Amino acid sequence: MPAVRPTRDQYVYWEQQTTRWADIDVYGHMNNARYFEIIDTVVNNHLEGAVHQGADLRTLPVIGVVAEVGCRYFAEVHYPTPIDVGVAVEKVGTSSVVYRVGLFQGDDPLAKAEGRFVHVYVDNTDPARPVAPMPEEIRAAVTPLLG
Amino acid sequence: MPAVRPTRDQYVYWEQQTTRWADIDVYGHMNNARYFEIIDTVVNNHLEGAVHQGADLRTLPVIGVVAEVGCRYFAEVHYPTPIDVGVAVEKVGTSSVVYRVGLFQGDDPLAKAEGRFVHVYVDNTDPARPVAPMPEEIRAAVTPLLG
Amino acid sequence: MPAVRPTRDQYVYWEQQTTRWADIDVYGHMNNARYFEIIDTVVNNHLEGAVHQGADLRTLPVIGVVAEVGCRYFAEVHYPTPIDVGVAVEKVGTSSVVYRVGLFQGDDPLAKAEGRFVHVYVDNTDPARPVAPMPEEIRAAVTPLLG
Amino acid sequence: MPAVRPTRDQYVYWEQQTTRWADIDVYGHMNNARYFEIIDTVVNNHLEGAVHQGADLRTLPVIGVVAEVGCRYFAEVHYPTPIDVGVAVEKVGTSSVVYRVGLFQGDDPLAKAEGRFVHVYVDNTDPARPVAPMPEEIRAAVTPLLG
Repeated sequence: MPAVRPTRDQYVYWEQQTTRWADIDVYGHMNNARYFEIIDTVVNNHLEGAVHQGADLRTLPVIGVVAEVGCRYFAEVHYPTPIDVGVAVEKVGTSSVVYRVGLFQGDDPLAKAEGRFVHVYVDNTDPARPVAPMPEEIRAAVTPLLG
Repeated sequence: MPAVRPTRDQYVYWEQQTTRWADIDVYGHMNNARYFEIIDTVVNNHLEGAVHQGADLRTLPVIGVVAEVGCRYFAEVHYPTPIDVGVAVEKVGTSSVVYRVGLFQGDDPLAKAEGRFVHVYVDNTDPARPVAPMPEEIRAAVTPLLG
Repeated sequence: MPAVRPTRDQYVYWEQQTTRWADIDVYGHMNNARYFEIIDTVVNNHLEGAVHQGADLRTLPVIGVVAEVGCRYFAEVHYPTPIDVGVAVEKVGTSSVVYRVGLFQGDDPLAKAEGRFVHVYVDNTDPARPVAPMPEEIRAAVTPLLG
Repeated sequence: MPAVRPTRDQYVYWEQQTTRWADIDVYGHMNNARYFEIIDTVVNNHLEGAVHQGADLRTLPVIGVVAEVGCRYFAEVHYPTPIDVGVAVEKVGTSSVVYRVGLFQGDDPLAKAEGRFVHVYVDNTDPARPVAPMPEEIRAAVTPLLG
Protein backbone atom coordinates (compact mmCIF):
# COMPACT_ATOMS: atom_id res chain seq x y z
CA MET A 1 0.00 0.00 0.00
CA PRO A 2 2.67 2.57 0.80
CA ALA A 3 4.47 4.13 -2.12
CA VAL A 4 7.92 3.38 -0.76
CA ARG A 5 9.11 0.42 1.32
CA PRO A 6 12.38 0.99 3.21
CA THR A 7 15.55 -0.84 2.16
CA ARG A 8 18.29 -2.48 4.24
CA ASP A 9 20.80 0.33 3.71
CA GLN A 10 18.61 2.64 5.79
CA TYR A 11 19.48 0.86 9.05
CA VAL A 12 22.68 0.74 11.08
CA TYR A 13 22.41 -1.89 13.83
CA TRP A 14 21.37 -5.42 12.89
CA GLU A 15 20.17 -8.57 14.63
CA GLN A 16 18.37 -11.70 13.64
CA GLN A 17 15.37 -12.85 15.64
CA THR A 18 13.61 -16.20 15.39
CA THR A 19 9.90 -16.44 14.64
CA ARG A 20 7.51 -18.58 16.66
CA TRP A 21 4.55 -20.74 15.74
CA ALA A 22 2.47 -18.70 18.22
CA ASP A 23 3.30 -15.49 16.31
CA ILE A 24 1.09 -16.57 13.45
CA ASP A 25 -2.61 -15.83 13.32
CA VAL A 26 -5.48 -17.53 11.57
CA TYR A 27 -4.55 -15.96 8.23
CA GLY A 28 -1.05 -17.46 8.38
CA HIS A 29 0.86 -14.23 8.99
CA MET A 30 2.39 -12.70 12.06
CA ASN A 31 -0.12 -11.04 14.37
CA ASN A 32 0.24 -7.26 14.41
CA ALA A 33 1.04 -7.16 18.14
CA ARG A 34 3.90 -9.63 17.78
CA TYR A 35 5.93 -7.25 15.60
CA PHE A 36 6.28 -5.04 18.64
CA GLU A 37 7.77 -7.91 20.64
CA ILE A 38 10.48 -8.11 18.01
CA ILE A 39 10.93 -4.35 17.84
CA ASP A 40 11.40 -3.65 21.55
CA THR A 41 13.58 -6.72 21.98
CA VAL A 42 16.08 -5.48 19.42
CA VAL A 43 16.05 -1.90 20.69
CA ASN A 44 16.74 -3.21 24.19
CA ASN A 45 19.36 -5.69 22.97
CA HIS A 46 21.24 -2.84 21.32
CA LEU A 47 21.25 -0.90 24.56
CA GLU A 48 22.31 -3.94 26.60
CA GLY A 49 25.23 -4.51 24.27
CA ALA A 50 26.29 -0.93 23.64
CA VAL A 51 25.85 0.53 27.08
CA HIS A 52 25.76 -1.98 29.78
CA GLN A 53 28.03 -4.83 28.92
CA GLY A 54 26.37 -7.19 31.28
CA ALA A 55 24.91 -4.65 33.66
CA ASP A 56 21.17 -4.74 33.99
CA LEU A 57 19.34 -1.81 32.37
CA ARG A 58 16.35 -2.53 34.50
CA THR A 59 18.05 -1.67 37.78
CA LEU A 60 19.40 1.73 36.73
CA PRO A 61 18.02 4.90 38.38
CA VAL A 62 17.03 6.37 35.00
CA ILE A 63 15.21 3.98 32.70
CA GLY A 64 13.71 4.23 29.24
CA VAL A 65 9.94 3.82 29.09
CA VAL A 66 8.00 3.43 25.88
CA ALA A 67 6.03 6.60 25.16
CA GLU A 68 4.81 5.85 21.66
CA VAL A 69 5.13 3.12 19.07
CA GLY A 70 3.81 2.47 15.62
CA CYS A 71 4.18 0.04 12.77
CA ARG A 72 3.39 0.08 9.08
CA TYR A 73 2.87 -3.37 7.55
CA PHE A 74 3.96 -3.66 3.93
CA ALA A 75 4.10 -7.40 3.28
CA GLU A 76 3.53 -10.56 5.28
CA VAL A 77 6.09 -11.94 7.69
CA HIS A 78 6.12 -15.73 7.53
CA TYR A 79 7.00 -18.42 10.05
CA PRO A 80 9.47 -20.17 10.44
CA THR A 81 11.85 -17.86 8.56
CA PRO A 82 13.89 -15.70 10.96
CA ILE A 83 13.55 -11.93 10.81
CA ASP A 84 16.48 -9.64 10.04
CA VAL A 85 15.92 -6.57 12.15
CA GLY A 86 17.61 -3.27 11.34
CA VAL A 87 17.65 -0.31 13.69
CA ALA A 88 18.30 3.37 12.99
CA VAL A 89 17.80 6.40 15.18
CA GLU A 90 15.79 9.26 13.74
CA LYS A 91 16.18 11.74 16.56
CA VAL A 92 18.00 12.09 19.87
CA GLY A 93 16.55 14.64 22.26
CA THR A 94 17.39 15.58 25.84
CA SER A 95 15.25 12.82 27.30
CA SER A 96 13.99 10.87 24.32
CA VAL A 97 15.12 8.71 21.44
CA VAL A 98 13.08 8.00 18.30
CA TYR A 99 14.00 4.73 16.59
CA ARG A 100 13.05 3.33 13.20
CA VAL A 101 13.12 -0.46 13.06
CA GLY A 102 12.94 -2.35 9.77
CA LEU A 103 11.87 -6.00 9.57
CA PHE A 104 13.14 -8.07 6.64
CA GLN A 105 12.93 -11.74 5.69
CA GLY A 106 14.98 -13.87 3.34
CA ASP A 107 16.52 -12.11 0.35
CA ASP A 108 13.77 -9.57 -0.08
CA PRO A 109 15.57 -6.19 -0.19
CA LEU A 110 12.41 -4.38 0.91
CA ALA A 111 11.15 -4.16 4.47
CA LYS A 112 8.14 -6.28 5.39
CA ALA A 113 7.31 -3.72 8.04
CA GLU A 114 8.74 -0.65 9.67
CA GLY A 115 8.28 0.18 13.30
CA ARG A 116 8.67 3.49 15.05
CA PHE A 117 9.62 3.34 18.71
CA VAL A 118 9.98 6.24 21.14
CA HIS A 119 11.84 5.83 24.41
CA VAL A 120 11.49 8.55 27.03
CA TYR A 121 13.88 8.47 29.96
CA VAL A 122 12.37 8.75 33.44
CA ASP A 123 13.63 8.75 37.00
CA ASN A 124 12.76 5.27 38.28
CA THR A 125 13.72 6.18 41.86
CA ASP A 126 10.62 8.40 42.02
CA PRO A 127 7.31 6.46 41.91
CA ALA A 128 5.86 9.18 39.66
CA ARG A 129 8.64 8.46 37.16
CA PRO A 130 9.19 12.07 36.00
CA VAL A 131 11.01 12.70 32.71
CA ALA A 132 14.78 12.93 33.26
CA PRO A 133 17.79 13.68 31.10
CA MET A 134 19.10 10.65 29.28
CA PRO A 135 22.26 9.19 30.85
CA GLU A 136 25.40 10.06 28.89
CA GLU A 137 26.16 6.39 28.15
CA ILE A 138 22.74 6.02 26.52
CA ARG A 139 23.38 9.12 24.39
CA ALA A 140 26.75 7.72 23.36
CA ALA A 141 25.13 4.41 22.43
CA VAL A 142 22.31 5.76 20.30
CA THR A 143 24.05 8.64 18.52
CA PRO A 144 25.97 6.33 16.13
CA LEU A 145 22.64 4.96 14.93
CA LEU A 146 21.50 8.33 13.56
CA GLY A 147 20.70 7.37 9.97
CA MET B 1 3.94 13.51 28.28
CA PRO B 2 1.21 14.51 25.82
CA ALA B 3 -0.65 17.73 26.50
CA VAL B 4 -4.09 16.13 26.26
CA ARG B 5 -5.22 12.65 27.26
CA PRO B 6 -8.48 11.47 25.66
CA THR B 7 -11.63 11.10 27.77
CA ARG B 8 -14.32 8.42 27.73
CA ASP B 9 -16.89 10.54 25.89
CA GLN B 10 -14.71 10.43 22.78
CA TYR B 11 -15.53 6.76 22.13
CA VAL B 12 -18.71 5.06 20.96
CA TYR B 13 -18.36 1.27 21.28
CA TRP B 14 -17.28 -0.21 24.60
CA GLU B 15 -16.03 -3.53 25.93
CA GLN B 16 -14.19 -4.69 29.00
CA GLN B 17 -11.15 -6.94 28.61
CA THR B 18 -9.33 -8.81 31.35
CA THR B 19 -5.62 -8.33 31.98
CA ARG B 20 -3.19 -11.21 32.35
CA TRP B 21 -0.20 -11.80 34.57
CA ALA B 22 1.87 -12.41 31.44
CA ASP B 23 0.97 -8.92 30.14
CA ILE B 24 3.18 -7.36 32.76
CA ASP B 25 6.86 -6.74 32.26
CA VAL B 26 9.75 -6.41 34.65
CA TYR B 27 8.77 -2.85 35.53
CA GLY B 28 5.30 -3.95 36.64
CA HIS B 29 3.35 -2.42 33.77
CA MET B 30 1.80 -3.84 30.64
CA ASN B 31 4.32 -4.56 27.89
CA ASN B 32 3.87 -2.21 24.92
CA ALA B 33 3.11 -5.07 22.50
CA ARG B 34 0.31 -6.39 24.67
CA TYR B 35 -1.78 -3.23 24.21
CA PHE B 36 -2.15 -4.19 20.58
CA GLU B 37 -3.58 -7.58 21.57
CA ILE B 38 -6.32 -5.70 23.40
CA ILE B 39 -6.82 -3.21 20.58
CA ASP B 40 -7.26 -5.65 17.71
CA THR B 41 -9.40 -7.95 19.85
CA VAL B 42 -11.95 -5.23 20.51
CA VAL B 43 -11.95 -3.96 16.91
CA ASN B 44 -12.58 -7.51 15.74
CA ASN B 45 -15.19 -8.17 18.43
CA HIS B 46 -17.12 -5.13 17.28
CA LEU B 47 -17.13 -6.43 13.72
CA GLU B 48 -18.12 -9.93 14.81
CA GLY B 49 -21.05 -8.53 16.76
CA ALA B 50 -22.18 -5.82 14.37
CA VAL B 51 -21.74 -7.56 11.07
CA HIS B 52 -21.57 -11.24 11.30
CA GLN B 53 -23.81 -12.41 14.08
CA GLY B 54 -22.10 -15.74 14.33
CA ALA B 55 -20.65 -15.90 10.85
CA ASP B 56 -16.88 -16.16 10.72
CA LEU B 57 -15.14 -13.02 9.45
CA ARG B 58 -12.10 -15.05 8.65
CA THR B 59 -13.76 -17.10 5.94
CA LEU B 60 -15.21 -14.17 3.98
CA PRO B 61 -13.88 -13.42 0.45
CA VAL B 62 -12.94 -9.87 1.44
CA ILE B 63 -11.09 -9.55 4.75
CA GLY B 64 -9.64 -6.69 6.74
CA VAL B 65 -5.86 -6.77 7.12
CA VAL B 66 -3.95 -4.50 9.44
CA ALA B 67 -2.04 -1.90 7.42
CA GLU B 68 -0.83 0.33 10.20
CA VAL B 69 -1.12 0.62 13.95
CA GLY B 70 0.18 2.91 16.63
CA CYS B 71 -0.18 3.59 20.31
CA ARG B 72 0.60 6.50 22.60
CA TYR B 73 1.15 5.52 26.24
CA PHE B 74 0.03 8.14 28.77
CA ALA B 75 -0.05 6.28 32.06
CA GLU B 76 0.59 2.74 33.25
CA VAL B 77 -1.93 -0.03 32.83
CA HIS B 78 -1.90 -2.30 35.86
CA TYR B 79 -2.73 -5.96 36.38
CA PRO B 80 -5.17 -7.40 37.52
CA THR B 81 -7.60 -4.52 36.93
CA PRO B 82 -9.66 -5.07 33.75
CA ILE B 83 -9.38 -2.57 30.92
CA ASP B 84 -12.34 -0.57 29.63
CA VAL B 85 -11.82 -0.27 25.91
CA GLY B 86 -13.58 2.41 23.87
CA VAL B 87 -13.63 2.45 20.09
CA ALA B 88 -14.35 5.30 17.68
CA VAL B 89 -13.89 5.51 13.94
CA GLU B 90 -11.94 8.45 12.62
CA LYS B 91 -12.33 7.83 8.91
CA VAL B 92 -14.14 5.45 6.58
CA GLY B 93 -12.69 5.23 3.09
CA THR B 94 -13.52 3.06 0.09
CA SER B 95 -11.33 0.21 1.30
CA SER B 96 -10.08 1.30 4.69
CA VAL B 97 -11.20 2.16 8.20
CA VAL B 98 -9.16 4.17 10.70
CA TYR B 99 -10.04 3.43 14.33
CA ARG B 100 -9.11 5.20 17.54
CA VAL B 101 -9.12 2.91 20.58
CA GLY B 102 -8.92 4.28 24.12
CA LEU B 103 -7.80 2.15 27.07
CA PHE B 104 -9.06 3.10 30.53
CA GLN B 105 -8.80 1.54 33.99
CA GLY B 106 -10.84 1.98 37.13
CA ASP B 107 -12.44 5.38 37.68
CA ASP B 108 -9.71 7.37 35.95
CA PRO B 109 -11.58 9.54 33.41
CA LEU B 110 -8.44 9.90 31.28
CA ALA B 111 -7.15 7.28 28.86
CA LYS B 112 -4.11 5.26 29.91
CA ALA B 113 -3.29 4.85 26.24
CA GLU B 114 -4.76 5.50 22.83
CA GLY B 115 -4.26 3.20 19.89
CA ARG B 116 -4.70 3.94 16.23
CA PHE B 117 -5.62 0.98 14.04
CA VAL B 118 -6.01 0.93 10.26
CA HIS B 119 -7.83 -1.91 8.53
CA VAL B 120 -7.50 -2.21 4.77
CA TYR B 121 -9.86 -4.57 2.99
CA VAL B 122 -8.33 -7.06 0.57
CA ASP B 123 -9.54 -9.85 -1.69
CA ASN B 124 -8.62 -13.02 0.21
CA THR B 125 -9.55 -15.24 -2.76
CA ASP B 126 -6.49 -13.90 -4.60
CA PRO B 127 -3.14 -14.98 -3.05
CA ALA B 128 -1.76 -11.49 -3.75
CA ARG B 129 -4.56 -10.06 -1.58
CA PRO B 130 -5.19 -6.89 -3.66
CA VAL B 131 -7.05 -4.00 -2.05
CA ALA B 132 -10.80 -4.34 -2.57
CA PRO B 133 -13.85 -2.24 -1.75
CA MET B 134 -15.11 -2.76 1.76
CA PRO B 135 -18.24 -4.94 1.93
CA GLU B 136 -21.42 -2.92 2.52
CA GLU B 137 -22.13 -4.66 5.82
CA ILE B 138 -18.73 -3.57 7.12
CA ARG B 139 -19.43 0.01 6.07
CA ALA B 140 -22.78 -0.13 7.83
CA ALA B 141 -21.12 -1.46 10.97
CA VAL B 142 -18.34 1.09 11.25
CA THR B 143 -20.14 4.25 10.14
CA PRO B 144 -22.06 4.62 13.46
CA LEU B 145 -18.70 4.72 15.25
CA LEU B 146 -17.63 7.92 13.50
CA GLY B 147 -16.84 10.12 16.50
CA MET C 1 -9.05 -38.36 23.68
CA PRO C 2 -9.19 -38.70 27.47
CA ALA C 3 -11.82 -41.03 28.88
CA VAL C 4 -13.21 -38.44 31.30
CA ARG C 5 -13.47 -34.67 30.91
CA PRO C 6 -13.83 -32.74 34.19
CA THR C 7 -17.12 -31.01 35.04
CA ARG C 8 -17.80 -27.61 36.62
CA ASP C 9 -18.70 -29.01 40.04
CA GLN C 10 -15.08 -30.11 40.50
CA TYR C 11 -13.85 -26.52 40.96
CA VAL C 12 -14.30 -24.06 43.81
CA TYR C 13 -13.07 -20.60 42.78
CA TRP C 14 -14.36 -19.08 39.53
CA GLU C 15 -13.49 -16.22 37.23
CA GLN C 16 -14.25 -15.28 33.67
CA GLN C 17 -11.43 -14.27 31.36
CA THR C 18 -11.74 -12.71 27.93
CA THR C 19 -10.15 -14.30 24.87
CA ARG C 20 -8.02 -12.38 22.39
CA TRP C 21 -7.68 -12.48 18.64
CA ALA C 22 -3.95 -13.09 19.11
CA ASP C 23 -4.69 -16.23 21.16
CA ILE C 24 -5.84 -18.01 18.04
CA ASP C 25 -3.49 -19.90 15.77
CA VAL C 26 -3.65 -20.80 12.13
CA TYR C 27 -6.07 -23.66 12.82
CA GLY C 28 -8.55 -21.30 14.46
CA HIS C 29 -8.13 -22.51 18.03
CA MET C 30 -6.27 -21.14 21.01
CA ASN C 31 -2.52 -21.75 20.88
CA ASN C 32 -1.40 -24.23 23.52
CA ALA C 33 0.89 -21.71 25.24
CA ARG C 34 -1.93 -19.20 25.67
CA TYR C 35 -3.89 -21.51 27.98
CA PHE C 36 -1.12 -21.05 30.51
CA GLU C 37 -1.56 -17.27 30.39
CA ILE C 38 -5.15 -17.81 31.47
CA ILE C 39 -4.22 -20.41 34.09
CA ASP C 40 -1.56 -18.42 35.94
CA THR C 41 -3.62 -15.24 35.73
CA VAL C 42 -6.52 -16.82 37.59
CA VAL C 43 -4.32 -18.56 40.17
CA ASN C 44 -2.64 -15.23 40.86
CA ASN C 45 -5.95 -13.33 40.87
CA HIS C 46 -7.26 -15.68 43.53
CA LEU C 47 -4.23 -15.02 45.70
CA GLU C 48 -4.43 -11.27 45.16
CA GLY C 49 -8.06 -11.30 46.24
CA ALA C 50 -7.88 -13.81 49.07
CA VAL C 51 -4.61 -12.84 50.66
CA HIS C 52 -3.47 -9.44 49.80
CA GLN C 53 -6.45 -7.18 49.41
CA GLY C 54 -4.53 -4.63 47.49
CA ALA C 55 -1.05 -5.47 48.71
CA ASP C 56 1.37 -6.51 46.00
CA LEU C 57 2.28 -10.22 46.04
CA ARG C 58 5.36 -9.47 44.04
CA THR C 59 7.04 -7.44 46.74
CA LEU C 60 6.67 -9.99 49.56
CA PRO C 61 9.80 -11.66 51.01
CA VAL C 62 8.43 -15.14 50.22
CA ILE C 63 6.99 -15.52 46.73
CA GLY C 64 5.44 -18.37 44.79
CA VAL C 65 7.42 -19.49 41.75
CA VAL C 66 6.09 -21.87 39.15
CA ALA C 67 7.83 -25.24 39.49
CA GLU C 68 5.76 -27.30 37.11
CA VAL C 69 2.73 -26.88 34.89
CA GLY C 70 0.79 -29.05 32.52
CA CYS C 71 -2.36 -28.99 30.43
CA ARG C 72 -4.55 -31.60 28.80
CA TYR C 73 -6.55 -30.32 25.83
CA PHE C 74 -9.94 -31.99 25.38
CA ALA C 75 -11.78 -29.72 22.96
CA GLU C 76 -11.11 -26.47 21.17
CA VAL C 77 -11.36 -23.11 22.87
CA HIS C 78 -12.81 -20.54 20.50
CA TYR C 79 -12.47 -16.79 20.21
CA PRO C 80 -14.24 -14.45 21.00
CA THR C 81 -16.23 -16.41 23.62
CA PRO C 82 -14.93 -15.71 27.15
CA ILE C 83 -13.53 -18.56 29.21
CA ASP C 84 -15.01 -19.63 32.54
CA VAL C 85 -12.07 -20.66 34.66
CA GLY C 86 -12.52 -22.88 37.71
CA VAL C 87 -9.79 -23.48 40.26
CA ALA C 88 -9.41 -26.26 42.83
CA VAL C 89 -6.46 -27.18 44.99
CA GLU C 90 -5.32 -30.78 44.89
CA LYS C 91 -2.63 -30.64 47.53
CA VAL C 92 -1.18 -28.18 50.04
CA GLY C 93 2.32 -29.00 51.28
CA THR C 94 4.74 -27.15 53.51
CA SER C 95 6.12 -25.06 50.66
CA SER C 96 3.99 -25.98 47.67
CA VAL C 97 0.48 -25.85 46.30
CA VAL C 98 -0.84 -28.02 43.47
CA TYR C 99 -3.76 -26.47 41.61
CA ARG C 100 -6.15 -27.93 39.05
CA VAL C 101 -7.62 -25.33 36.70
CA GLY C 102 -10.56 -26.14 34.42
CA LEU C 103 -11.35 -24.07 31.32
CA PHE C 104 -14.95 -24.01 30.09
CA GLN C 105 -16.80 -22.10 27.38
CA GLY C 106 -20.47 -21.34 26.87
CA ASP C 107 -22.95 -23.90 28.20
CA ASP C 108 -20.73 -26.92 27.65
CA PRO C 109 -20.70 -28.71 31.03
CA LEU C 110 -17.40 -30.42 30.19
CA ALA C 111 -13.98 -28.78 30.45
CA LYS C 112 -12.27 -27.78 27.21
CA ALA C 113 -8.96 -28.22 28.98
CA GLU C 114 -7.55 -28.84 32.41
CA GLY C 115 -4.35 -27.33 33.64
CA ARG C 116 -2.16 -28.43 36.51
CA PHE C 117 -0.11 -25.71 38.17
CA VAL C 118 2.45 -26.11 40.95
CA HIS C 119 3.59 -23.13 43.00
CA VAL C 120 6.65 -23.56 45.20
CA TYR C 121 7.34 -20.85 47.75
CA VAL C 122 10.85 -19.42 47.86
CA ASP C 123 12.72 -16.77 49.79
CA ASN C 124 12.94 -13.82 47.38
CA THR C 125 15.31 -11.90 49.68
CA ASP C 126 18.03 -14.46 48.84
CA PRO C 127 19.23 -14.34 45.20
CA ALA C 128 19.41 -18.15 45.19
CA ARG C 129 15.69 -18.22 46.03
CA PRO C 130 15.77 -21.27 48.35
CA VAL C 131 12.52 -23.10 49.11
CA ALA C 132 10.79 -21.61 52.15
CA PRO C 133 7.68 -22.43 54.17
CA MET C 134 4.54 -20.95 52.68
CA PRO C 135 3.28 -17.85 54.53
CA GLU C 136 0.30 -18.59 56.78
CA GLU C 137 -1.97 -16.21 54.85
CA ILE C 138 -1.26 -18.16 51.66
CA ARG C 139 -2.11 -21.43 53.42
CA ALA C 140 -5.34 -19.90 54.70
CA ALA C 141 -6.21 -18.72 51.19
CA VAL C 142 -5.62 -21.99 49.34
CA THR C 143 -6.95 -24.51 51.89
CA PRO C 144 -10.63 -23.69 51.17
CA LEU C 145 -9.99 -24.63 47.54
CA LEU C 146 -9.15 -28.24 48.39
CA GLY C 147 -11.63 -30.08 46.17
CA MET D 1 13.76 -28.86 43.14
CA PRO D 2 13.92 -32.03 41.05
CA ALA D 3 16.60 -34.51 41.94
CA VAL D 4 17.94 -34.76 38.41
CA ARG D 5 18.14 -32.08 35.72
CA PRO D 6 18.50 -33.40 32.15
CA THR D 7 21.76 -32.91 30.24
CA ARG D 8 22.40 -31.98 26.61
CA ASP D 9 23.33 -35.53 25.54
CA GLN D 10 19.76 -36.62 26.11
CA TYR D 11 18.48 -34.75 23.05
CA VAL D 12 18.91 -35.40 19.35
CA TYR D 13 17.61 -32.43 17.32
CA TRP D 14 18.85 -28.94 18.17
CA GLU D 15 17.92 -25.37 17.41
CA GLN D 16 18.64 -22.00 18.91
CA GLN D 17 15.77 -19.62 19.61
CA THR D 18 16.04 -15.96 20.55
CA THR D 19 14.46 -14.61 23.73
CA ARG D 20 12.29 -11.51 23.81
CA TRP D 21 11.92 -8.66 26.27
CA ALA D 22 8.20 -9.47 26.47
CA ASP D 23 9.01 -13.03 27.61
CA ILE D 24 10.17 -11.72 30.95
CA ASP D 25 7.83 -11.18 33.88
CA VAL D 26 7.97 -8.91 36.86
CA TYR D 27 10.45 -11.22 38.63
CA GLY D 28 12.92 -10.97 35.75
CA HIS D 29 12.52 -14.50 34.43
CA MET D 30 10.66 -15.97 31.51
CA ASN D 31 6.93 -16.31 32.09
CA ASN D 32 5.85 -19.96 32.36
CA ALA D 33 3.55 -19.73 29.33
CA ARG D 34 6.33 -18.45 27.09
CA TYR D 35 8.34 -21.67 27.41
CA PHE D 36 5.58 -23.39 25.47
CA GLU D 37 5.96 -20.89 22.63
CA ILE D 38 9.57 -22.03 22.34
CA ILE D 39 8.69 -25.71 22.71
CA ASP D 40 6.02 -25.95 20.02
CA THR D 41 8.02 -23.75 17.67
CA VAL D 42 10.97 -26.13 17.71
CA VAL D 43 8.81 -29.26 17.45
CA ASN D 44 7.09 -27.73 14.44
CA ASN D 45 10.36 -26.49 12.93
CA HIS D 46 11.73 -30.02 13.07
CA LEU D 47 8.70 -31.33 11.22
CA GLU D 48 8.85 -28.54 8.64
CA GLY D 49 12.48 -29.35 7.95
CA ALA D 50 12.37 -33.13 8.14
CA VAL D 51 9.11 -33.80 6.40
CA HIS D 52 7.90 -31.03 4.32
CA GLN D 53 10.82 -29.25 2.79
CA GLY D 54 8.86 -26.17 2.02
CA ALA D 55 5.41 -27.70 1.94
CA ASP D 56 2.98 -26.30 4.47
CA LEU D 57 2.13 -28.68 7.32
CA ARG D 58 -0.95 -26.68 8.04
CA THR D 59 -2.66 -27.53 4.76
CA LEU D 60 -2.21 -31.33 4.96
CA PRO D 61 -5.29 -33.55 5.37
CA VAL D 62 -3.88 -35.12 8.55
CA ILE D 63 -2.47 -32.64 11.04
CA GLY D 64 -0.89 -32.90 14.46
CA VAL D 65 -2.87 -31.27 17.25
CA VAL D 66 -1.54 -30.74 20.74
CA ALA D 67 -3.24 -33.13 23.15
CA GLU D 68 -1.15 -32.56 26.24
CA VAL D 69 1.86 -30.53 27.30
CA GLY D 70 3.83 -30.01 30.45
CA CYS D 71 6.95 -28.30 31.68
CA ARG D 72 9.17 -28.64 34.72
CA TYR D 73 11.13 -25.50 35.58
CA PHE D 74 14.53 -26.14 37.14
CA ALA D 75 16.33 -22.81 36.90
CA GLU D 76 15.59 -19.39 35.51
CA VAL D 77 15.80 -18.59 31.82
CA HIS D 78 17.19 -15.10 31.32
CA TYR D 79 16.78 -12.50 28.58
CA PRO D 80 18.54 -11.64 26.26
CA THR D 81 20.55 -14.88 26.11
CA PRO D 82 19.29 -17.18 23.36
CA ILE D 83 17.93 -20.61 24.28
CA ASP D 84 19.46 -23.83 23.00
CA VAL D 85 16.56 -26.18 22.48
CA GLY D 86 17.08 -29.94 22.27
CA VAL D 87 14.37 -32.35 21.16
CA ALA D 88 14.05 -36.10 21.71
CA VAL D 89 11.13 -38.41 21.09
CA GLU D 90 10.05 -40.61 23.96
CA LYS D 91 7.38 -42.63 22.20
CA VAL D 92 5.92 -43.05 18.72
CA GLY D 93 2.45 -44.59 18.61
CA THR D 94 0.01 -45.20 15.77
CA SER D 95 -1.41 -41.69 15.95
CA SER D 96 0.69 -39.91 18.53
CA VAL D 97 4.19 -38.71 19.27
CA VAL D 98 5.52 -37.85 22.73
CA TYR D 99 8.40 -35.36 22.68
CA ARG D 100 10.79 -34.28 25.41
CA VAL D 101 12.20 -30.79 24.86
CA GLY D 102 15.13 -29.48 26.88
CA LEU D 103 15.87 -25.75 27.24
CA PHE D 104 19.46 -24.71 27.94
CA GLN D 105 21.26 -21.36 28.16
CA GLY D 106 24.91 -20.43 27.89
CA ASP D 107 27.42 -23.03 29.00
CA ASP D 108 25.26 -24.54 31.70
CA PRO D 109 25.28 -28.29 30.97
CA LEU D 110 22.00 -28.77 32.83
CA ALA D 111 18.57 -28.00 31.43
CA LYS D 112 16.81 -24.87 32.70
CA ALA D 113 13.52 -26.59 31.96
CA GLU D 114 12.15 -29.66 30.29
CA GLY D 115 8.93 -29.73 28.35
CA ARG D 116 6.78 -32.68 27.43
CA PHE D 117 4.71 -32.29 24.28
CA VAL D 118 2.17 -34.74 22.87
CA HIS D 119 1.01 -34.48 19.27
CA VAL D 120 -2.03 -36.51 18.23
CA TYR D 121 -2.73 -36.78 14.53
CA VAL D 122 -6.27 -36.02 13.37
CA ASP D 123 -8.16 -35.88 10.09
CA ASN D 124 -8.45 -32.16 9.34
CA THR D 125 -10.82 -32.77 6.40
CA ASP D 126 -13.50 -33.77 8.93
CA PRO D 127 -14.72 -30.88 11.14
CA ALA D 128 -14.84 -33.28 14.11
CA ARG D 129 -11.13 -33.93 13.62
CA PRO D 130 -11.14 -37.64 14.54
CA VAL D 131 -7.87 -39.33 15.45
CA ALA D 132 -6.14 -40.73 12.37
CA PRO D 133 -3.01 -42.77 11.72
CA MET D 134 0.11 -40.64 11.49
CA PRO D 135 1.33 -40.10 7.92
CA GLU D 136 4.34 -42.27 7.03
CA GLU D 137 6.56 -39.22 6.40
CA ILE D 138 5.85 -37.99 9.92
CA ARG D 139 6.77 -41.40 11.35
CA ALA D 140 9.99 -41.38 9.34
CA ALA D 141 10.82 -37.90 10.62
CA VAL D 142 10.25 -38.54 14.31
CA THR D 143 11.64 -42.07 14.66
CA PRO D 144 15.30 -40.94 14.45
CA LEU D 145 14.65 -38.72 17.48
CA LEU D 146 13.87 -41.67 19.76
CA GLY D 147 16.32 -41.10 22.59
